[in-house]
Amino acid sequence: MIPTKFTRKLKKLLGHENVLTDENELVAYSYDSQPQQALPDAMVLVSSTNDIAGTVKLAVEYGIPIVARGAGSGMTGGAIPERGGIIVNMERMDRIIDISVEDRIAYLQPGVITGDFQAVVSEKGLYYPPEPASSQYSSIGGNVAESAGGLGCVKYGLTKHFVAGLIFVTTGGDVVKTGVYSDKDSPFDVGALMLGSEGTLAVITEVAVRLIDLPESRVTVLALFRSLVETAQASNAVLMSGVNPSVLEFMDRRCIDTVREYAEVSIPDDTGALLIAELDGDTTETETGHKILLETLQNLHPLDLKSARTEKERNALWKLRKSLSPAIVKIAPLKFNEDICVPLSRIPEMAAFVEELGKRHDVQVVTFGHSGDGNLHVNFMTHWKRPDEIARAKTAIEELFRETVRVGGTLSGEHGIGIAKRPYLSIELDEATMEFEKRIKHAFDPGNILNPGKIFPE
Amino acid sequence: MIPTKFTRKLKKLLGHENVLTDENELVAYSYDSQPQQALPDAMVLVSSTNDIAGTVKLAVEYGIPIVARGAGSGMTGGAIPERGGIIVNMERMDRIIDISVEDRIAYLQPGVITGDFQAVVSEKGLYYPPEPASSQYSSIGGNVAESAGGLGCVKYGLTKHFVAGLIFVTTGGDVVKTGVYSDKDSPFDVGALMLGSEGTLAVITEVAVRLIDLPESRVTVLALFRSLVETAQASNAVLMSGVNPSVLEFMDRRCIDTVREYAEVSIPDDTGALLIAELDGDTTETETGHKILLETLQNLHPLDLKSARTEKERNALWKLRKSLSPAIVKIAPLKFNEDICVPLSRIPEMAAFVEELGKRHDVQVVTFGHSGDGNLHVNFMTHWKRPDEIARAKTAIEELFRETVRVGGTLSGEHGIGIAKRPYLSIELDEATMEFEKRIKHAFDPGNILNPGKIFPE
Repeated sequence: MIPTKFTRKLKKLLGHENVLTDENELVAYSYDSQPQQALPDAMVLVSSTNDIAGTVKLAVEYGIPIVARGAGSGMTGGAIPERGGIIVNMERMDRIIDISVEDRIAYLQPGVITGDFQAVVSEKGLYYPPEPASSQYSSIGGNVAESAGGLGCVKYGLTKHFVAGLIFVTTGGDVVKTGVYSDKDSPFDVGALMLGSEGTLAVITEVAVRLIDLPESRVTVLALFRSLVETAQASNAVLMSGVNPSVLEFMDRRCIDTVREYAEVSIPDDTGALLIAELDGDTTETETGHKILLETLQNLHPLDLKSARTEKERNALWKLRKSLSPAIVKIAPLKFNEDICVPLSRIPEMAAFVEELGKRHDVQVVTFGHSGDGNLHVNFMTHWKRPDEIARAKTAIEELFRETVRVGGTLSGEHGIGIAKRPYLSIELDEATMEFEKRIKHAFDPGNILNPGKIFPE
Repeated sequence: MIPTKFTRKLKKLLGHENVLTDENELVAYSYDSQPQQALPDAMVLVSSTNDIAGTVKLAVEYGIPIVARGAGSGMTGGAIPERGGIIVNMERMDRIIDISVEDRIAYLQPGVITGDFQAVVSEKGLYYPPEPASSQYSSIGGNVAESAGGLGCVKYGLTKHFVAGLIFVTTGGDVVKTGVYSDKDSPFDVGALMLGSEGTLAVITEVAVRLIDLPESRVTVLALFRSLVETAQASNAVLMSGVNPSVLEFMDRRCIDTVREYAEVSIPDDTGALLIAELDGDTTETETGHKILLETLQNLHPLDLKSARTEKERNALWKLRKSLSPAIVKIAPLKFNEDICVPLSRIPEMAAFVEELGKRHDVQVVTFGHSGDGNLHVNFMTHWKRPDEIARAKTAIEELFRETVRVGGTLSGEHGIGIAKRPYLSIELDEATMEFEKRIKHAFDPGNILNPGKIFPE
């Protein structure tokens, strides 16, 4: 519970109508895209850096937790107010402040929906490559806080590679402006720490991102294989062929079965997994790449190989992948969605390990992801009513993480740590590194009011 | 002066032969590539993370400054032991620990010379793009500490975009291992702060970098124009033409005059500035790009336009640029080498501003740089014996920085802040940001022993 005096001051600062304390309404801010949830004590609608600075100042004074919330589409519980306190809701801070076509820089408020922004810049012939699968509903501020990845990272990199500058509010009450809006900058940049910090160090109030030229053409290729391991090998063969795919995605048999009914392309029953590769660039570049790509894949004896060049053909192929996340819960209602990332050479063995893991622990495993950068989404499908199966899934998850780290990978390629991966972080980080990171968190937030409890295990 | 007891302990830790205290020998560690210098009290040769951890521990205990030194080629005094103390010399930590061709990751000790490393990976068909002009003699650890840039950044990005992971020693005695060796990683990463931190936060003992495929072909084009402003406009026209140059460099008239005698291509006397553009990629890509590039430049009526395709032809063109830095001191022995970076659209006006600035303050200005990313090296040429001219140059430098920041740029694109830009940092950073960054420095290094005094003005 938050003190009445605190709420009163908050209402005075932001206006009565912008401070919500009704429990029934607060439910909407108690969850994100993973299973856990927790009610906040209040939700505030902010409209400016000043609003946020004032809110943080009050929260520090009263020691009330603050959880910044973009679109609430996070996969690891970053926006869940686990210890109550106030949700700082960014939905009104959704303005594209400026787009400079010549400088290839855009300035955004954190609540801008990434997909909306991509659509606006593409009309200007520009491209913002980091595209999480959630881009149609996730916000740029959330993408920065989680250092989100997505489909195009294999060629272009993650959100962190496109952030040019940030404005954020610190617990000391400072409005800090980092980065510069030119292409290069070498000075010491505390803004770099914000990427992936999940709202635990400061509250981001403005984001500047770099843009590139919109590619002139795209070609998409679908390849069907007999097994997941064959598909993983094909993915690596594409990477070693010299083409530079902008997307390289795979789905296992269970994924295919789940989306088969939505598919506009026919998929034979003996398909064990599929690979989707996309090339972008100027027309000659994609044409040459396309030839190499087909040749490389043909040599691996796929069940089928299809190319899509027109927007319509490409959409038909992409429908397979894009309908996956919403459809997957049909398999079982409780999904533990893991997000491991391993060195490229280890993908085939991890694919084999994952299949064996599910069998050994008798739990359904559904795997898809971004094979081009070693990022595997391993989903353990179960049900609230099957506690034994949940326990087996949790054992399997821990084994998965241990194996991932053993081969040089990470627990999280693009979803962050939040609540969901927190119990396992010590598998990846040694004690010295963990303690050091905690000391840095303490330096930013001595009162532990910014998204308290996230990332680090107790 | 450092206490005898401290030196004794240091010798016990590292071996007598690895601790140098003779002033005559220490002179070699008193300078880098800018005019200021200062003698250390000792220089230690380290060979391992353990050596460094032990040295840092001792230095913390006795409160002795520590300055990590790579190849000593820095441009802003980062390696100058301004407050004495000990130089941690990385020249023996020059081992390429491992190169994984399939994972496209390499692990390096900080003393590896960047150019040597590039040569080794290129034999394996791989490419490490960040190439400071100093790459033949600068070290990877120094490149990381300064977040060095260079010629290829316009297409590929800076050093910071290629660092996958780091090991560093903290003042708390921890050996911290950050980053992961897979392509994606989203967790909160304190390693990101090391890039550009100039040895003020920790001592880097290992660097993992990402690699990409070695481009199949390169084409280089030299365009001569009547003026610097025309050249800057041409540079922007190239960027807007849709080609994706891997290099886009310019040199002004004074630069051209300086290197004319080394040039293997003829340059007419009325040449006011030149542009060198390079394309890389597969052969069809560079061929198509080359056509667009020539067309774009031809439309701007250059004095001359030359293409180079073979290694021999390319080297002839590049000789113009690569002989510049050593040759430039012939103009005058004291060079204040600035490194501003401005938004792309502002390059032509900055080029005009720089020419006017030199005239107005009656000081020779020589300008060259990486116009593709707005990074202008503005060199004020003077002499120790001309204090009036030095004073005028300093006034001009401050004006240059104020104008740079006014148009949205930064004091330093790729050289860092160090000693040389320190007096001007407050032009770029507001007080809140500066104070916040100092607090982060304090959190890492409460005793202020790591490269003390660098970056932040007193």
